[in-house]
Amino acid sequence: MYRLHIANKNYSSWSLRPWVLMRHLEIPFEEQLTAFDTGSSWRSFRAFSPTGKVPCLEDGERGIWESLAIVEYLAERHAGVWPRDEAARAWARSASAEMHAGFGALRDECPMNCAARVRLSSPSAALEQELERLDELWQEGLSRFGGPFLAGADFSAVDAFFAPVAFRVRSFGLELGEASRVYVDTLLDLPAMRQWDADAVAEPWREPGHEDDLLARGTLLEDRRENG
Amino acid sequence: MYRLHIANKNYSSWSLRPWVLMRHLEIPFEEQLTAFDTGSSWRSFRAFSPTGKVPCLEDGERGIWESLAIVEYLAERHAGVWPRDEAARAWARSASAEMHAGFGALRDECPMNCAARVRLSSPSAALEQELERLDELWQEGLSRFGGPFLAGADFSAVDAFFAPVAFRVRSFGLELGEASRVYVDTLLDLPAMRQWDADAVAEPWREPGHEDDLLARGTLLEDRRENG
Repeated sequence: MYRLHIANKNYSSWSLRPWVLMRHLEIPFEEQLTAFDTGSSWRSFRAFSPTGKVPCLEDGERGIWESLAIVEYLAERHAGVWPRDEAARAWARSASAEMHAGFGALRDECPMNCAARVRLSSPSAALEQELERLDELWQEGLSRFGGPFLAGADFSAVDAFFAPVAFRVRSFGLELGEASRVYVDTLLDLPAMRQWDADAVAEPWREPGHEDDLLARGTLLEDRRENG
Repeated sequence: MYRLHIANKNYSSWSLRPWVLMRHLEIPFEEQLTAFDTGSSWRSFRAFSPTGKVPCLEDGERGIWESLAIVEYLAERHAGVWPRDEAARAWARSASAEMHAGFGALRDECPMNCAARVRLSSPSAALEQELERLDELWQEGLSRFGGPFLAGADFSAVDAFFAPVAFRVRSFGLELGEASRVYVDTLLDLPAMRQWDADAVAEPWREPGHEDDLLARGTLLEDRRENG
């Protein structure tokens, strides 16, 4: 059985990607959650991940790190990871790689925190430009391949790559076009996403670095956690 | 025939990746070079690339952006893009994805400039840590799969992903272990890499943004271009 190393569900956007993909596709795995340390988690995560980062997938003796590499590893072994249609698959891979290395302002200024609602103090011009690009990209996929998912009728790896963005949009009330808003709701309503969200809210940990970073971004409007 | 959109060979490390892979594997393509504009190239690159970035591959009506997605697109159509061995392929994809989204200090502080030799003024602690990780990663691949390339006897996409690093190591005299130094020489000696290097040195353009950024990093020791 696969073992998937992840970190706190409330914070770890990278962990969410393979987790939600595997849960949705019903690929069996054992979840191994290591909570973030105060300060740097690099040293403790190095025990199972060569980069000191999550996620990391163990398949027997083999360790696969980086979410995009995990996805390609699973795609060689399980149906449904990428769309079957050739054009949709090419598009899905381009969009996933763009997310993997891009959208830096979105990731910095709108850190994932499933439980929280925040009013952003001062969104940067870079963030506005990225949201414009995000909206364009999503609308292109949804209209070109027919929806309701980005590359067609079925949830695939490209949706998993943008799953953390759905939580960010909800937390920060980010403004997107109508098609993108409907898509965010579709993602948030998936059973696997609801499970992740519920687990995140129930977590006992609060890591000061992540909490301070969030509060520096704006005004906290709501926090659904009970461990405050 | 494929058309590969790239930018200046002297500067564009992302362009080099699919270019050197396709040249080395003898996958025919038409090269379309658009030189960087002074200031932002986003607007002119948007004419052929949805992100306003290079590289971008055209296959008939289909456009594939992001170097990692281009590589996967080619892997579905041509032999030799990834190693045939399953363990080597999984490792190669993890290492490539790590490069795709990581090594930010290396990319910022040691910008690719094939023609130049520079003595770095003040390498950051982050850069030192990344060079340590790079050395560890390379040595792991080289010893585990037998070399002389990262994932075995043949040049594959993971070597293409680190090809720009070979030019950076040469330009900035970055210190690495013996196995990594030999590997850099192996990359630099490939016919496709020598061709790219010669083309870079012969380019007629000097884009002030890239030039100023380089000079801000340290002392220029050599510049092989004749267009100064």
